[in-house]
Amino acid sequence: MDFSSFLTSLVTSFLIFVVLMLLFTWLSRRPGNAVVYYPSRILKGLDPWEGGSATRNPLAWMREAFSSTEQDIVNISGVDSAVYFVFLGTAFGILLLSGVVLLPLLLPIAATDDSIKRAQDTTSNGTFGELDKLAMGNVRKRSSRLWAFLISTYWVSFVSYYLLWKAYLHVSRLRANALMSPEVRPEQFAILVRDVPSVTEGQTIKEQVDSYFKDIYPQSYYRSLIATDNKKVNKIYEELEGFKKKLAHAEAVYAESKKSGKPEGSRPTTRTGFLGLVGKKVDSIEYCNEKINELIPKLEAEQKGTLREKQQPAALVFFTSRVTAACASQSLHAQMVDKWMVSEAPEPRQLIWPNLKIKFFQRQIRQYVVYVIVALTIFFYMIPIGFISALTTLDNLKKILPFIKPVVNIAVLKTVLEAYLPQIALIIFLALLPSLLLFLSKQEGIPSESHAVRAASGKYFYFTVLNVFIGVTVGGTLFQSFKSIEKHPNSIVSTLANSLPGNATFFLTFVALKFFVGYGLELSRLVPLIIFHLKRKYLCKTEAELKEAWSPGDFGYTTRIPSDMLVITVVLCYSVIAPLIIPFGVVYFGLGWLVLRNQALKVYVPSFESQGRMWPHIHIRIMASLLLYQVTMLGYFGVKEFFYMPLLIPLPILSLLFAYVCAKKFYRSFADTALEVTSKELKETPNMEQIFRSFIPPSLSSEKVDEDQYEDALSQASRVG
Amino acid sequence: MDFSSFLTSLVTSFLIFVVLMLLFTWLSRRPGNAVVYYPSRILKGLDPWEGGSATRNPLAWMREAFSSTEQDIVNISGVDSAVYFVFLGTAFGILLLSGVVLLPLLLPIAATDDSIKRAQDTTSNGTFGELDKLAMGNVRKRSSRLWAFLISTYWVSFVSYYLLWKAYLHVSRLRANALMSPEVRPEQFAILVRDVPSVTEGQTIKEQVDSYFKDIYPQSYYRSLIATDNKKVNKIYEELEGFKKKLAHAEAVYAESKKSGKPEGSRPTTRTGFLGLVGKKVDSIEYCNEKINELIPKLEAEQKGTLREKQQPAALVFFTSRVTAACASQSLHAQMVDKWMVSEAPEPRQLIWPNLKIKFFQRQIRQYVVYVIVALTIFFYMIPIGFISALTTLDNLKKILPFIKPVVNIAVLKTVLEAYLPQIALIIFLALLPSLLLFLSKQEGIPSESHAVRAASGKYFYFTVLNVFIGVTVGGTLFQSFKSIEKHPNSIVSTLANSLPGNATFFLTFVALKFFVGYGLELSRLVPLIIFHLKRKYLCKTEAELKEAWSPGDFGYTTRIPSDMLVITVVLCYSVIAPLIIPFGVVYFGLGWLVLRNQALKVYVPSFESQGRMWPHIHIRIMASLLLYQVTMLGYFGVKEFFYMPLLIPLPILSLLFAYVCAKKFYRSFADTALEVTSKELKETPNMEQIFRSFIPPSLSSEKVDEDQYEDALSQASRVG
Repeated sequence: MDFSSFLTSLVTSFLIFVVLMLLFTWLSRRPGNAVVYYPSRILKGLDPWEGGSATRNPLAWMREAFSSTEQDIVNISGVDSAVYFVFLGTAFGILLLSGVVLLPLLLPIAATDDSIKRAQDTTSNGTFGELDKLAMGNVRKRSSRLWAFLISTYWVSFVSYYLLWKAYLHVSRLRANALMSPEVRPEQFAILVRDVPSVTEGQTIKEQVDSYFKDIYPQSYYRSLIATDNKKVNKIYEELEGFKKKLAHAEAVYAESKKSGKPEGSRPTTRTGFLGLVGKKVDSIEYCNEKINELIPKLEAEQKGTLREKQQPAALVFFTSRVTAACASQSLHAQMVDKWMVSEAPEPRQLIWPNLKIKFFQRQIRQYVVYVIVALTIFFYMIPIGFISALTTLDNLKKILPFIKPVVNIAVLKTVLEAYLPQIALIIFLALLPSLLLFLSKQEGIPSESHAVRAASGKYFYFTVLNVFIGVTVGGTLFQSFKSIEKHPNSIVSTLANSLPGNATFFLTFVALKFFVGYGLELSRLVPLIIFHLKRKYLCKTEAELKEAWSPGDFGYTTRIPSDMLVITVVLCYSVIAPLIIPFGVVYFGLGWLVLRNQALKVYVPSFESQGRMWPHIHIRIMASLLLYQVTMLGYFGVKEFFYMPLLIPLPILSLLFAYVCAKKFYRSFADTALEVTSKELKETPNMEQIFRSFIPPSLSSEKVDEDQYEDALSQASRVG
Repeated sequence: MDFSSFLTSLVTSFLIFVVLMLLFTWLSRRPGNAVVYYPSRILKGLDPWEGGSATRNPLAWMREAFSSTEQDIVNISGVDSAVYFVFLGTAFGILLLSGVVLLPLLLPIAATDDSIKRAQDTTSNGTFGELDKLAMGNVRKRSSRLWAFLISTYWVSFVSYYLLWKAYLHVSRLRANALMSPEVRPEQFAILVRDVPSVTEGQTIKEQVDSYFKDIYPQSYYRSLIATDNKKVNKIYEELEGFKKKLAHAEAVYAESKKSGKPEGSRPTTRTGFLGLVGKKVDSIEYCNEKINELIPKLEAEQKGTLREKQQPAALVFFTSRVTAACASQSLHAQMVDKWMVSEAPEPRQLIWPNLKIKFFQRQIRQYVVYVIVALTIFFYMIPIGFISALTTLDNLKKILPFIKPVVNIAVLKTVLEAYLPQIALIIFLALLPSLLLFLSKQEGIPSESHAVRAASGKYFYFTVLNVFIGVTVGGTLFQSFKSIEKHPNSIVSTLANSLPGNATFFLTFVALKFFVGYGLELSRLVPLIIFHLKRKYLCKTEAELKEAWSPGDFGYTTRIPSDMLVITVVLCYSVIAPLIIPFGVVYFGLGWLVLRNQALKVYVPSFESQGRMWPHIHIRIMASLLLYQVTMLGYFGVKEFFYMPLLIPLPILSLLFAYVCAKKFYRSFADTALEVTSKELKETPNMEQIFRSFIPPSLSSEKVDEDQYEDALSQASRVG
């Protein structure tokens, strides 16, 4: 890629960004769009705009994002969001501090050498552009100018260590502050107990749990909530809710028809069969009412049956004090580890109920099976795709799905489909991958949503780094020189290093595209806007349906963090080889911080709160990137035949040491809750009954099921004690 | 070694054993020796013999050892001893069950083949004896008879898994029973707190510790004992105790001289200089009295000063309930792991006070430094010895120590010394090694004696296995074929396997010597007996001195366990190759169990009690032996060119899996105390003041230092709360 085409691509991306910005300014002022651009504020009952909508400065959102403090973010969007901004800020800081030194130092040194020119003179088979002259590739082999690059490698590493250390300290404090907050959080009073041993004769699981914990904590034990198999009751509950929604919808349609058409209105009809498409035609309102009346007693019966007969060997145990709960969640309770396993209780909304019953050793086995599957997916992901695309050739498809024959026999369509089917398979696979990873992570037996998201995000990171970064970089080179690698396995590093400079401009454009177009779309929210207006116009009839149509969702850390991590990995790895990439990285994280700050304040609503537990995962993956960068630099200095290259060997060792020290010093306070933190006083005496009730899943907590019926799955403690 | 010389050596060892047994029977009947043969019973205030001494059956001790239950051992000698017998019993069981199948199966199969005879016929350079015909070496290559050996390999492994699993369960229960005992044990009410952060202005460490823990445990916190720098006060205390002893000795000598010689007696004298050998001659009694009177106020002043000014950032914190203490010892207290680090308190007598102040990261660093030193010692232990023996050549010694010149110039002595100096250096090194390893382990910053012993014992195990077993086995072979190994590193296993059969008889004799002579000496206690009688005759004058002379010491696990482990490693590795070794292993552990049972009941007094915490260490090292055995067998079947050799590959994988499952299931209850265990009721309400006082080191707890002076290092809690 030469300079002009690079500039063209850059300018195009920038123009797209400007257009999207203007669209955002224009669209976000229209009151009808407020629910798309300010859903978080509206859900909190705040005024969407702080001033008026029309008089607002088009750049007001920037000012607001800048002036918001971390405490604002914590209050509005939670600790997890604040931690995510610490990550963006740290990445920004690392790249900024690196750029301030590397750009003025390395660019002149590289530009005034002539390695590339001489190479072109002698061999003339390279296609080097102007940009490559500003990179390390332009420095001659064994040149003493390489000293500057070596020192820069150290500089970038030390800047990273320093800022990562500060960030870990900061996040640690953030988490501590959140945990010691005087607000009553139900999950701080509960622990999750799994692997309850099989009951002795004539005892229910509940009685067993109660007597066990009452023995150990005679003073602060409150009661227990036994996990139940909610599959059937959930199904009935969802059916019931579905009919309730349908009824409201049908009534709204009926009311509307009264207004618009005949005064007596036309009663909406529906079909009883599959998806309302087939079967007998009936009156919707009557049919729904009938079904609801049928399901309510069924649900009640099933609720009672579930509580009484479907108890599972897992429970939530409640304590009257935060300290006891935190202390209990960290202590070994049974002599055998695979019995009475305790852990911190997650938030009620995050609990993955079906996973609770999975036993200790089964969890271990599931974990390793999932790891193996994911590792195979990462390394050989081309194979299933190849398999799928082989399956999805047109001829095969015609055999399997004969009804598509007339469509695909059109000549033009046939050509297009034949050319794109493999790519489409790849795109579909890549789009489904995060969900697949999340599904696999949940299969490990993880009890909480946030933990599953962390696990999936970590897996996705390794996938992107291995496949996008190393895949693109080494790409064909590796395949060509496969035989030489087989003979000298340590040439992998030098192959990687050799193919790095050629791809620098590719990644420059990649990062630029990512931030201009990506953040432009993020800010302007074009897709959710269009979907919302379509839904409003054609589907939504009731208030509830409308609210569902504009519900903003959360940050989506499963894919967001790995994609940011990919950028920092790429920029770090190229930082010394092609310093020109650094400003792009700085803009990516700077703009990202700004745009997402706006989104955090006004758009997204977090679906869980893990009090910053994702930070150690982010930290360890940044360290992995840094290590990759250092090893790559070692290889590249080797390619440059620099005599003092061994001076870089301490760097990877230092990184491992740094990661070890950080893990030792900080990690445990993320895995467990420190007692000094929970011993802070509460604002009010906790209402234990309310705390307990907040953990009851919605399908079991209908108003009809009242106290005395519930007692079956509840503790006798309060009555006995 | 041919059959007759093997028999000779066996018969000699057996005769020595019989002689030592007879000596034991004769000597232990004499009342004057009771303190040597029954010290444990005497210290407990029991009658040494249950019947009379003269009428006893010479084999009565065997009957008593057999009839003693595990509970007797726990009561008399503690859980650690009981666990040690579980180890002996398990090793015995593994070898017995293996032998029952392997001997009748493998010996005929090996004896009726003729591989050795044919080898001798064709090459006639082997020196094979009768015994070798009974081993796997006599089976022809690729013979289908090897199936029996392959199945035997599996049999031994599965027997080991089964018995080890049962033993782990059993020990786990032993530990649980000990921990839930209704006796009040001071260490169950305390936790050890290290890494107390630096104090804020105007606060002592004690105040800080008190307020910190009182905040977290408002109900069950009792008070704290701050670690102090006791170096100086200990020195004064020891000096004082020394003079008290000398005074008693001098008075005894004076009283004796009155009786025996002149009625006015001769007052003993001493010299004030080095070791009482040089300096002014003074009257001993007067001198000691003078010194004691001088030291008592000095000690008191130093005690006060130590408590007030030499507080260190570590403490013992006491709780009024066992559950709270166990729970607290497992929980994270501070947000940063390197502050307020807690762990279970060891027994008062085991505390290594000077280690308590060492900070978290320093402990980590020390640990790794020690690991590196030990690894270097194990792998290159010949180098320092070579260095020492080079230094200790006669010529060098003469230069360094000129005064030995006249002695070593005697011709005969010179020859002997020159021949033996290197060996002497080796022997001294080997004798000093356990102490060196214990010293190194303590340098890691370990806070308790039992933990240091475990750590040293583990290190010693790797030393013996690597150097004695692999060293002897491979020995010269390895050195000769060093070049071939460099080319094919995986031939190490086959080299090891190749050289195994030749050394089978060496190890047979080794094991036989170890149990006949070793256990004979153990039972007859000849060395302690002689030392005791010498001391009684020439040195001891007072009761206290006499008691010190016969104090029996403890089991000495640092060397005892590794040396047993060496035997089981050797026997396991040879079990299939030369099954004749199995009966020797069975006798070793059977006789060991019997002899040591006697010693545990009547002789040794444990110097600490760790409630069986050494079992996981033993277990993991038996597993290491088993793995070594399986890998060796893989290699040896390879040497035998057996086609179905790959069928053995699952075995090492199974072993790793078994070790992993055991560690997961059992280990944590050894590292921590399970809460269900500590929640059992106590026999009596604990006397907290007494519990607290039991942790005060003797040098600080003289009667003169009473309550109000102590308050400086004590908590204010009891006054405030």
